[in-house]
Amino acid sequence: MTATLPRVLADLRSDTVTTPTPEMREAMAQAAVGDDVYGEDPTVNALQAEVARLTGFEAGLFMPSGTMTNQVAIALHTRRGEEVVCAEGSHIYEWELGMMATFSGVVPRFVPAPLGVPDPEGVRLAVRHSVHQSPTGLISLENTHNKAGGTVIPLEVLAAIRGVADAEGLPLHLDGARVFNAAAALGVPVSEITRHFDTVSVCLSKGLGAPVGSVLVGSAAAMRGAHRYRKMMGGGMRQAGVLAAAALVALRDGPARLKADHRRTRRLAQALAEAGFDVNLAAVQTNIIYVTLPDAAAQVARWAGQGVLASALGPDSVRFVLHHQVSDEALEEAIRVLTA
Amino acid sequence: MTATLPRVLADLRSDTVTTPTPEMREAMAQAAVGDDVYGEDPTVNALQAEVARLTGFEAGLFMPSGTMTNQVAIALHTRRGEEVVCAEGSHIYEWELGMMATFSGVVPRFVPAPLGVPDPEGVRLAVRHSVHQSPTGLISLENTHNKAGGTVIPLEVLAAIRGVADAEGLPLHLDGARVFNAAAALGVPVSEITRHFDTVSVCLSKGLGAPVGSVLVGSAAAMRGAHRYRKMMGGGMRQAGVLAAAALVALRDGPARLKADHRRTRRLAQALAEAGFDVNLAAVQTNIIYVTLPDAAAQVARWAGQGVLASALGPDSVRFVLHHQVSDEALEEAIRVLTA
Amino acid sequence: MTATLPRVLADLRSDTVTTPTPEMREAMAQAAVGDDVYGEDPTVNALQAEVARLTGFEAGLFMPSGTMTNQVAIALHTRRGEEVVCAEGSHIYEWELGMMATFSGVVPRFVPAPLGVPDPEGVRLAVRHSVHQSPTGLISLENTHNKAGGTVIPLEVLAAIRGVADAEGLPLHLDGARVFNAAAALGVPVSEITRHFDTVSVCLSKGLGAPVGSVLVGSAAAMRGAHRYRKMMGGGMRQAGVLAAAALVALRDGPARLKADHRRTRRLAQALAEAGFDVNLAAVQTNIIYVTLPDAAAQVARWAGQGVLASALGPDSVRFVLHHQVSDEALEEAIRVLTA
Amino acid sequence: MTATLPRVLADLRSDTVTTPTPEMREAMAQAAVGDDVYGEDPTVNALQAEVARLTGFEAGLFMPSGTMTNQVAIALHTRRGEEVVCAEGSHIYEWELGMMATFSGVVPRFVPAPLGVPDPEGVRLAVRHSVHQSPTGLISLENTHNKAGGTVIPLEVLAAIRGVADAEGLPLHLDGARVFNAAAALGVPVSEITRHFDTVSVCLSKGLGAPVGSVLVGSAAAMRGAHRYRKMMGGGMRQAGVLAAAALVALRDGPARLKADHRRTRRLAQALAEAGFDVNLAAVQTNIIYVTLPDAAAQVARWAGQGVLASALGPDSVRFVLHHQVSDEALEEAIRVLTA
Repeated sequence: MTATLPRVLADLRSDTVTTPTPEMREAMAQAAVGDDVYGEDPTVNALQAEVARLTGFEAGLFMPSGTMTNQVAIALHTRRGEEVVCAEGSHIYEWELGMMATFSGVVPRFVPAPLGVPDPEGVRLAVRHSVHQSPTGLISLENTHNKAGGTVIPLEVLAAIRGVADAEGLPLHLDGARVFNAAAALGVPVSEITRHFDTVSVCLSKGLGAPVGSVLVGSAAAMRGAHRYRKMMGGGMRQAGVLAAAALVALRDGPARLKADHRRTRRLAQALAEAGFDVNLAAVQTNIIYVTLPDAAAQVARWAGQGVLASALGPDSVRFVLHHQVSDEALEEAIRVLTA
Repeated sequence: MTATLPRVLADLRSDTVTTPTPEMREAMAQAAVGDDVYGEDPTVNALQAEVARLTGFEAGLFMPSGTMTNQVAIALHTRRGEEVVCAEGSHIYEWELGMMATFSGVVPRFVPAPLGVPDPEGVRLAVRHSVHQSPTGLISLENTHNKAGGTVIPLEVLAAIRGVADAEGLPLHLDGARVFNAAAALGVPVSEITRHFDTVSVCLSKGLGAPVGSVLVGSAAAMRGAHRYRKMMGGGMRQAGVLAAAALVALRDGPARLKADHRRTRRLAQALAEAGFDVNLAAVQTNIIYVTLPDAAAQVARWAGQGVLASALGPDSVRFVLHHQVSDEALEEAIRVLTA
Repeated sequence: MTATLPRVLADLRSDTVTTPTPEMREAMAQAAVGDDVYGEDPTVNALQAEVARLTGFEAGLFMPSGTMTNQVAIALHTRRGEEVVCAEGSHIYEWELGMMATFSGVVPRFVPAPLGVPDPEGVRLAVRHSVHQSPTGLISLENTHNKAGGTVIPLEVLAAIRGVADAEGLPLHLDGARVFNAAAALGVPVSEITRHFDTVSVCLSKGLGAPVGSVLVGSAAAMRGAHRYRKMMGGGMRQAGVLAAAALVALRDGPARLKADHRRTRRLAQALAEAGFDVNLAAVQTNIIYVTLPDAAAQVARWAGQGVLASALGPDSVRFVLHHQVSDEALEEAIRVLTA
Repeated sequence: MTATLPRVLADLRSDTVTTPTPEMREAMAQAAVGDDVYGEDPTVNALQAEVARLTGFEAGLFMPSGTMTNQVAIALHTRRGEEVVCAEGSHIYEWELGMMATFSGVVPRFVPAPLGVPDPEGVRLAVRHSVHQSPTGLISLENTHNKAGGTVIPLEVLAAIRGVADAEGLPLHLDGARVFNAAAALGVPVSEITRHFDTVSVCLSKGLGAPVGSVLVGSAAAMRGAHRYRKMMGGGMRQAGVLAAAALVALRDGPARLKADHRRTRRLAQALAEAGFDVNLAAVQTNIIYVTLPDAAAQVARWAGQGVLASALGPDSVRFVLHHQVSDEALEEAIRVLTA
């Protein structure tokens, strides 16, 4: 049966589909491990320390997914009944299935965010003061912003929103699932972005290529609080060092590869635009492309039949995501299919 | 001290500010009562039956507020992690302080609703099917729509959205805090509106004039479920018949007065528009007027100093609400102050 | 149909069944009222101030039920995932339907409490410190303790548990639904009891006889926080002064009547014991009696047929509660029925 | 620095401390993987199918911890405000940090369970019917029961409690973190235990020895529902096949080793008893021993200084757990230390 399946030329559905590299498998096989529920896994501890160092925070906490790191952060910063100010289309709302409500008892308060970049004044106006309304508990940004097209928030906007947060006495969280992509696009160390935040969620299993895992970073006190929420959500893992070992490889080798992903993404976007597809080139800033076309699911199925996998994310929206396991050669083959 | 307070010419902050009429006070003084937690209060039972009869449902349940009737309905219809499709600016989100999240664990999914009227096709598109996203649990409408200006949803739109709900297998709730205003505006019995819904929340303490109370109506089975949620929220009251007695008077005398409230509202809106205020006359359909003006809080304070009370509901938004305790004479006096 | 119902000699199901006195009805009819959601109801404000004064707190907040005052207090003092240390059989768990979990996200941690009196050392041992377990967020007592038989916590036990709370840095809440009964039994002002607590819930619709309402008391800052939770639960009522007026009468006249209720309760308990019923006289300290007998529901139904109403609270447990609307004469008639 | 640490003769703190065997590491290095969030990881799929087959269910779902599999099951079976009937000391309450309340909005209802075995009649009495109380939503058992000493529920008790669940129309969940230990102790296939339940949580990282992971099993429909709750809790992992590969080895090799663990546990328990320790030999049925002794933390620290690690689980309680990485020789060395 499987013999009839087409060869996959390029899996462009997401940067989460990468499989572990030989170096990662070797690292997993060799990893020193312990029971991380007791804090005794040396490889997990090394990973947490390394992400904290790179992002400029005191401490980190390893978890099985970016949904968990984000939702633990929301729980940390809020009390029940409060509002989380975020951009429309934020992952914490669109793809985390109401967890902010079910676990933390909070609701989103959306601010308009053209190309995923919230206006600082819009953020300020979204903060609530009336006793008849829910108080604001947290401002949460996403950088790069997935649903807006992998777009990057300029550093001066981050600084301005940090100013709003300070003026209002509010914490600021970053969903940094692809913060290394943002840093690569801006050409700055990732800490230039993360320094504006109280907590940051960093995914290792997206563009960086690890099989599983995200790290939440923040103050040591915040991470102690996060530990309890992680346990509540079932994120306390035992010999998690086998995963952390692969993630350390991803953290070492992954960031340097992102510029090539971004270059290939622009190549694909331009090829699609030239072929007449409706693609907003201004939004193509990192490794994600959204194309608007009719009957998206059917088109995606046709391409899949020719070995190019993409995601239909709505009735008329298709997403392509580049990652390190799509080579220049594979990309050119994919372009031939997509523009045929 | 109080001698220096200005006489209040007209309290136009809300239709919730009405005080009980002599008939209501007399009814309260005479009410037959029992312990409603045991279901033994005859006046509460009579009120519940009367609201159910008027709206065409099997049963009703009396509660201390419209927030509670709405939130009990949301709990009835949803499971944790689901989405509630509703218009932007809905009371269940804007003024019920995250209760949908904290109690029911659900999040809102907004549909655009110009003048408070959601497009049925927009409602259909807002219903979620992907396993990666929160399923939709409920569609909730608000009629009249407070934040949109007391606007009325046309009957054919209700029918169309009922059709969407049926096609998707979803329940449909009405926040009918001012559903008698909608019926008066449309010139139909209230049951012509409520028949499209699975549950309806009816407030007796707004335009109808009762001191306290709302009734949730639905099937008998739904009301048995609602009873448990009411108790959880602390809405089980003992000799609540004293409140129900006043509410029965409101239900008997209130609806007939609403047309006059609407006439006075149009009179005020036109006077404000003629005086140069920025008021959207198309949105003035029942007993509410929103005016856009700079520095709303300061302007409201100045008018209060002259005896006319209004609500500043944002930095540049003022709301006026008419009700049966503003007479034609008082209104003309208020207009003189407001347009001076 | 109702003509065939037996005359009710004595309704001993609960002290919640009392109906408003003529003085209360007159007070309701005359009450000055305003919109309490805006804090403008003078009678509500007077009631809140009076309960705060009597109990020695800065401020109070009126709500429709004791369930709401208790659950608002739990929300005030805890964060999600914490434990509430309380006696087995506490009303906040047994009769408040999981609201502590659904709204506040907290679980009970039971301490043994013979006759409803928790051992201070047991309370101390129940406080959790391990990072692998839920932290303790609140200690909550109930005085008198309903399910233990209306029993009274000695003042020195209160002082000792306050000491534990202080040593552990934990808040202490009192479910004082019947705290005036406790004060009457101890012969002390109610403030001698309430002074040990951070917040106290006081019910006006139980032994004191008001138709509806409870007041939460605490610091002014706590009451500001409570205001938001009350609104979330739907406890913001409009012209609630009509209820507060009756409650003020209950507060003025009720406490002095409780000693007579207690005297009658002892009279009934002794009569039942002498007639051979299994009643723990040591637990009969205020206005409640529990009798253990087989097939409780059937026995209660038989007595109801003869005009004496009691509550079956389990397969073999019957509860009698005395209140000011059971006179000495009615009690003697009831005793004749019960001991026949 | 580490040179000064004592050599660890035996880590008896838990059966979670085992490190991956060479076979597991080899399997991880070779595992075929895919993106499990898309259901495409063949090794995860194989593991889920194998656990389902062994336990006699239609389907399984892999998660990072037993806390998550239990809490997803609680969410599946309950609605907010309900009660979960379980034994005192159950892991779902004692060690899962209020997650049943915070996520699912439910409270525990404890039944006495001497040696961890609930009396079926006690379970029946704990089911609630009154409209004034929380309805029961789920009965949850734990087998073996950790806090009671790794004790086994007899098959006839399981059958009787299944009968209660059926009579009451309630679902029945098993926390089977150590259900393979129970099967080994009873000498039956694990399916003889699991067939009485609607869902079962099976841990692979305890006695079976996998580094990370648990599987929830149930009907295919239940697992579809579980998928959403897993995603909400952040348990959707990407190339989780690397963990599943090790878990498949644990599932293949682990069960056969448990009898030896149990034999060694009895050996240790008898040695401790003979040395005068207070150990309840009747409770030593699988791989866990609880010893009551004064000043547990200090004693545990002294033993740790001599290379034998145990857990202090209370002021006067020490737990020893045997697992496949404690050999007969290591055990004898440990016994010499412990009984010196």
